[in-house]
Amino acid sequence: MNIAVFGTGSVGQALANRLAELSHAVVIGTRNVENALSKTGPDHMGTPPVGEFLKNHSSISLYTYSEAAKNASVIVLATLGHGAKEALAAAGDLDWKIILDITNPLDFSGGGLPTLFASNDTSLGEQLQAAFPKAHFVKSLNTMYNGLMVNPRSLGEDSTVFVSGNDAAAKATVIGILKEFGWKDSEILDLGDITTARGTESLLPVWLRVYSATKNGFFNFKVATGK
Amino acid sequence: MNIAVFGTGSVGQALANRLAELSHAVVIGTRNVENALSKTGPDHMGTPPVGEFLKNHSSISLYTYSEAAKNASVIVLATLGHGAKEALAAAGDLDWKIILDITNPLDFSGGGLPTLFASNDTSLGEQLQAAFPKAHFVKSLNTMYNGLMVNPRSLGEDSTVFVSGNDAAAKATVIGILKEFGWKDSEILDLGDITTARGTESLLPVWLRVYSATKNGFFNFKVATGK
Repeated sequence: MNIAVFGTGSVGQALANRLAELSHAVVIGTRNVENALSKTGPDHMGTPPVGEFLKNHSSISLYTYSEAAKNASVIVLATLGHGAKEALAAAGDLDWKIILDITNPLDFSGGGLPTLFASNDTSLGEQLQAAFPKAHFVKSLNTMYNGLMVNPRSLGEDSTVFVSGNDAAAKATVIGILKEFGWKDSEILDLGDITTARGTESLLPVWLRVYSATKNGFFNFKVATGK
Repeated sequence: MNIAVFGTGSVGQALANRLAELSHAVVIGTRNVENALSKTGPDHMGTPPVGEFLKNHSSISLYTYSEAAKNASVIVLATLGHGAKEALAAAGDLDWKIILDITNPLDFSGGGLPTLFASNDTSLGEQLQAAFPKAHFVKSLNTMYNGLMVNPRSLGEDSTVFVSGNDAAAKATVIGILKEFGWKDSEILDLGDITTARGTESLLPVWLRVYSATKNGFFNFKVATGK
């Protein structure tokens, strides 16, 4: 498939790398190509700059959001939560495009552990779906460390990946990608329409506290049923 | 131990039953004993009235909150979320008492799936701790179906129970009770102080959506680490 990954950070790089490895035609989209390429040295999360990533991934090119989206049948939305809407607005015509939305509405402005800028009676997933009503949003993979998103078998035990979205065909496409990453059928839990993103986005407050308590981000939530 | 269970619903009954089975001296507290005993027939959740429960549990008596709390070293708070503060206010002197808080701040007023009346930058757990500063609140067990709270081995696989609280000795007492219920050390995850209840209370939105999607409440979240 032609896949555009929006976002040049650790999540975008992990997704782009793995999708290219799986022989998809991958491009990365960013707001300003020149700015993105001018960055040197790792970001505050230790992620190398996208320029270095591109040197090591000759099949992947960097474009503006609209150039990257043009031929893409799937957009992987891997920007910061508060940059998601702006990125999509810059992408041009999104009608009928499948958008695999990995974002979380994290608000770091208070210092300490982030809060959510959309929660409880709303979610970033449904806000984006409302803003781009003819695009097919599928919220998934947003509940875990990016290394596990694309390589779930590396955990060494089964866990759960949630899927939320209004369009059945779009969800089937995303589930196909999840399976290419290594997710088992029994690990994939379709929660229903995009409002169920209220559930999965609210895993972030507990994810952050498990991470703080254990100093280990290499975990995932599992819906344990004894089966 | 002398344990007072606050709340006559399904969670209170499950806890009282199991604690008595484990030979603790258990009383149940309620706002108005006469009112509670006058109820006939199951509630909207199918829970039998407390009068019937008491007939089948001759060692357990029903008292007002303050009578029940008087000799208790541990109070199990199993009321509805919006009744929690009032119940504790009616209980008299709570200084230095250990309160195992199982409540969730569920707001059913909107119809449909409940939202949370405390979330994101606060939690019911920390609001109660602030309202009764000399009591030792330990939030735990609030993230699962009550049958699993008191009999975790019935699930058939390991899962996770979270613990949040400011007082180490109170947490140790609660963890002792959890182990009596059958929780393994490896399943008990101490997240830190009472503000970490923001994490575990925000599991409710995803719990509710897993339940809606699967029509099965007999599951629990596991922090899967591959170990």
